[in-house]
Amino acid sequence: MTAYTATVTVRLKRGVLDPEAETTQRQLERLGFDLEDLRSADQFEIDVDASDADAAAERADEMAERLLANPTIHDYEIEVAERDA
Amino acid sequence: MTAYTATVTVRLKRGVLDPEAETTQRQLERLGFDLEDLRSADQFEIDVDASDADAAAERADEMAERLLANPTIHDYEIEVAERDA
Repeated sequence: MTAYTATVTVRLKRGVLDPEAETTQRQLERLGFDLEDLRSADQFEIDVDASDADAAAERADEMAERLLANPTIHDYEIEVAERDA
Repeated sequence: MTAYTATVTVRLKRGVLDPEAETTQRQLERLGFDLEDLRSADQFEIDVDASDADAAAERADEMAERLLANPTIHDYEIEVAERDA
């Protein structure tokens, strides 16, 4: 078994309203910042022990499907890196 | 001016309690998943036009200091990439 960290990034699908991101963007503009757009995402860094990186990614993918993302409104992506155990 | 996306990742500092992450981890374990640890982070993808990547990163850094992160409890990191305008 090798120690991995799987990073799951969960984003709203294009077209799904994100009032929190809009509020953050407007607040930044009120503070004088110049920006074109702002999107927010949730990130989960999950430490797993697995036989290889593919197995770690597969387990993280199942976690996203079962709990971390809502397929109706979310897209997600997964990155896996070895970690110091 | 070049079009960039600055990604600001805001994490709780080590030692700051994260009940939401703990709940998520416990729920995954209840679903039968095997994991060592789970940490959560907020990510902001900010589209900015700037003269170069350093200027884009500097502006995102100011945004993090002013609004996106709370220095008492958060660490943050910034990545900048060109985007298709």
